[in-house]
Amino acid sequence: MNGLLSPDELERALRQIGAEHYHHLHPFQVMLNAGELTRFQVQAWALNRFFYQSRIPIKDATLLARLEDPCLRREWRRRIIDHDGDFDADGGLYRWTVLTDGLGLDRAYVESTKGVLPGTRFAVDAYISFVGERSVLEAIASSLTELFSSMAIGARVRGMLKNYDFVTSEILTYFDKRPPQAQRDSEFALAYVKDNARSVEAQQAVLNALKFKCSVLWAQLDALHHAYVVPGNIPPGAFDPENRAGSA
Amino acid sequence: MNGLLSPDELERALRQIGAEHYHHLHPFQVMLNAGELTRFQVQAWALNRFFYQSRIPIKDATLLARLEDPCLRREWRRRIIDHDGDFDADGGLYRWTVLTDGLGLDRAYVESTKGVLPGTRFAVDAYISFVGERSVLEAIASSLTELFSSMAIGARVRGMLKNYDFVTSEILTYFDKRPPQAQRDSEFALAYVKDNARSVEAQQAVLNALKFKCSVLWAQLDALHHAYVVPGNIPPGAFDPENRAGSA
Repeated sequence: MNGLLSPDELERALRQIGAEHYHHLHPFQVMLNAGELTRFQVQAWALNRFFYQSRIPIKDATLLARLEDPCLRREWRRRIIDHDGDFDADGGLYRWTVLTDGLGLDRAYVESTKGVLPGTRFAVDAYISFVGERSVLEAIASSLTELFSSMAIGARVRGMLKNYDFVTSEILTYFDKRPPQAQRDSEFALAYVKDNARSVEAQQAVLNALKFKCSVLWAQLDALHHAYVVPGNIPPGAFDPENRAGSA
Repeated sequence: MNGLLSPDELERALRQIGAEHYHHLHPFQVMLNAGELTRFQVQAWALNRFFYQSRIPIKDATLLARLEDPCLRREWRRRIIDHDGDFDADGGLYRWTVLTDGLGLDRAYVESTKGVLPGTRFAVDAYISFVGERSVLEAIASSLTELFSSMAIGARVRGMLKNYDFVTSEILTYFDKRPPQAQRDSEFALAYVKDNARSVEAQQAVLNALKFKCSVLWAQLDALHHAYVVPGNIPPGAFDPENRAGSA
């Protein structure tokens, strides 16, 4: 990169990272959307992704604890409220369990996170560490994958409904609620990043933060792809279709 | 302590700690309530206490980031919402600036926290570290000073209104809102602690957590007492009545 970007050039560079690094391009995601996975493979995806979902409020509270401006905290806490909801059986994390329930997974097994792949766990933990340890600007920039999630969710929902007879619109309720939340949140984060990345170094850090976050999402699908697409690769202790572990 | 306490015995032991260790007994607090401080000394108290207030949502978000149960997170996030409010000029932290404004302190100087005593800063930072590093049970137990705050607030408000002509009920608005919040929050935390401290070791840790937190409050008044009651003790850089630093 040569020299300081204008805010709009920075936005274009961020969107270009999304076009090249976001996990909508991952072979496992392409297979999921195209109906090429078995029910067990879709279960493995939903089970592992639950772990990621379960850590998102923890990630956001980790950032909240670093924000000294009450106005910025008010903005950021909405993410936690969206995810945890206002009561039992409310919020994004609950709605993800509607999906795992609907796919026939045992709720307690899912919530125990016992069957999660080590690769999922390490990627998600790395995200929380990043948000706790890097600059607040980088931590906020790492949320910008949400700029691309609506597009991915649309294709995922259409593909899953069309291609799997065990998927209904009822069990995909999580994806109904997310796009407007993701749009609002990512617009705020994008504006913050454009306002606050005012040096070449800060802009490079922001771009790298988004690449890092794309790699967190990508690595989770790599772990699924390796463990569940080629037979014989499931790590000890992980959700195992052969043993029917976790199926309700 | 000999043996395991019943939940009610544990509550009595916690309340006994409050009776002996809570900062309503501190000489500086007694002087504040009795009208024995100058306006400058009251300013110093409000200025330093603002720093403590400003870190409370950060403390609570630090704990929120450690809670894996969405139901418990929903409970705990209310504290952050109470403190940060729902908009500008709302919430407990804002209401504390009504007090510092009313006492004639410059808002930007207060919010910069530049004039805060090192002893205040270290005590507050120790509280955040405790909540981030000790067990969740100890972190929750450390909030239990709120069991005693309504009683202290009542005496403080009555004393300050009666004894200082520069104090009005309007600038004490913070204290109007706190008691019901503190009661609700401390009842939840007390029930949690009584339910979850099920071993001698856990009960001892809970009692020590409350003593620790009492010492965090006490040390802040020690720092004020030392710096502002006896002339000549104000540390370099701290709010200095002689220099009128921070006065609007």
